[in-house]
Amino acid sequence: MRLKELGEFGLIDLIKKTLESKVIGDDTAPVEYCSKKLLLTTDVLNEGVHFLRSYIPEAVGWKAISVNVSDVIANGGLPKWALISLNLPEDLEVSYVERFYIGVKRACEFYKCEVVGGNISKSEKIGISVFLVGETERFVGRDGARLGDSVFVSGTLGDSRAGLELLLMEKEEYEPFELALIQRHLRPTARIDYVKHIQKYANASMDISDGLVADANHLAQRSGVKIEILSEKLPLSNELKMYCEKYGKNPIEYALFGGEDYQLLFTHPKERWNPFLDMTEIGRVEEGEGVFVDGKKVEPKGWKHF
Amino acid sequence: MRLKELGEFGLIDLIKKTLESKVIGDDTAPVEYCSKKLLLTTDVLNEGVHFLRSYIPEAVGWKAISVNVSDVIANGGLPKWALISLNLPEDLEVSYVERFYIGVKRACEFYKCEVVGGNISKSEKIGISVFLVGETERFVGRDGARLGDSVFVSGTLGDSRAGLELLLMEKEEYEPFELALIQRHLRPTARIDYVKHIQKYANASMDISDGLVADANHLAQRSGVKIEILSEKLPLSNELKMYCEKYGKNPIEYALFGGEDYQLLFTHPKERWNPFLDMTEIGRVEEGEGVFVDGKKVEPKGWKHF
Repeated sequence: MRLKELGEFGLIDLIKKTLESKVIGDDTAPVEYCSKKLLLTTDVLNEGVHFLRSYIPEAVGWKAISVNVSDVIANGGLPKWALISLNLPEDLEVSYVERFYIGVKRACEFYKCEVVGGNISKSEKIGISVFLVGETERFVGRDGARLGDSVFVSGTLGDSRAGLELLLMEKEEYEPFELALIQRHLRPTARIDYVKHIQKYANASMDISDGLVADANHLAQRSGVKIEILSEKLPLSNELKMYCEKYGKNPIEYALFGGEDYQLLFTHPKERWNPFLDMTEIGRVEEGEGVFVDGKKVEPKGWKHF
Repeated sequence: MRLKELGEFGLIDLIKKTLESKVIGDDTAPVEYCSKKLLLTTDVLNEGVHFLRSYIPEAVGWKAISVNVSDVIANGGLPKWALISLNLPEDLEVSYVERFYIGVKRACEFYKCEVVGGNISKSEKIGISVFLVGETERFVGRDGARLGDSVFVSGTLGDSRAGLELLLMEKEEYEPFELALIQRHLRPTARIDYVKHIQKYANASMDISDGLVADANHLAQRSGVKIEILSEKLPLSNELKMYCEKYGKNPIEYALFGGEDYQLLFTHPKERWNPFLDMTEIGRVEEGEGVFVDGKKVEPKGWKHF
């Protein structure tokens, strides 16, 4: 059998079984150390899969750090140290690498973490693996959602997917709202403003990278619950609405299935809603299984690798 | 300018400058935590660069862990947690990945560390990034060599290079000593038996991955000293001698310039020699710069990525 027949999640199950591991399955791997929890995570950006050579290198550097920081935040932690392992073609311009690291540095300053090392290797295409170590006093995983919890998301959903589509149109000129969406795809910001809230109040938490339904499905599965979402409550940006109006699309589709928003999906009692954060209650944790939107079961169709 | 013109070490300098970093330059990155030192490191095996698809997958898994553990040991630490980030072609056989992880598991059991997470991404060729966290009470880097120190290496040198050459001959049948050399290339063992010795006694230490002269040169440079090596003292295996006799090669060349032995290179006073380890005194730390073999300055010609 080949990987594409087994699929990404089948492969992950196989790896866990082979390693006889019980610890793999959250955005980060928590390890106990010194009466604290260190959070270890790695995420990859590969040219041709996650980004194109034509993207601004500073943005690629920013994003490489941000997507890893997002995982640490999702589990209630703050980032501390990063390593960057780069695969680089030998005919690549030196300035590309320099500009990539300028983006990395800006991100590290913003999130208050530090690149302490790395590795360089030769390859045909650019490949970026970031390893990040964070820490937290309380680990919040995917498996803690409780019956009766409200389900919340940070920010707005679907923008990144619209931004990607706009980018791939390769238009000569873009309208300001279009540029804003493209920006959200190229230069996502991990929600570091949520760390204290997640750490203190969330029962379950993860970041939304594959798409809301796909990720809510992971959370529901791990927690052994059903997640009910009301589509009218989904937070949509004005830019996404303008995009959908202009191109005849349905913004709800983008919010439900668009990936790479790097917003947070978390559950806790309704009364823990915090007016100082841009969080929106989008549904409820109930008895059962799967993800339901407006009372109808919805299958995930987010990004899959195989 | 392109990467191949700048070269690997020029690129590393550029990255350090861009990040305004002072901490990059040892086998691992030491970070203070809880009055201990955590050691962070990452090393990569790329198909076509570091290994071929035809290699035994279990051996590739073993090696991926071993080369990272070797870095941690070189700095006086023990490995604790690993993440593995895999780039995989979608038409790869599932059994390949399973066998790879069997090798990973064996290595982790041997070195007493644990894979706690990872990432999978699609790509054209297999790429393996391992991220390892170790810990030590005392970090031993490249910069501590003292005048008058003796220079030691563990084990024997040059075997891996000979093993690689034999492998690339693709012979129908190999003699037993040839298989032993191939084994040393495919399945190197990080010298975990040296951890206490390095941690307790070494003034400077690193592992030999690029080749003795190339790596001794890094150590000399960072310590601001000259390293004098006597070629007659270089530890050579019987298998390497048999190989060189059979194929008309000079074993000293292999010991000086062959890479990927993953033995240790370290310095400390002569009287700290430990008879219970297979360590050999190969030279002295003296005033000056560069690496001298039998009194003659030798330029490094180890593996370079660009």
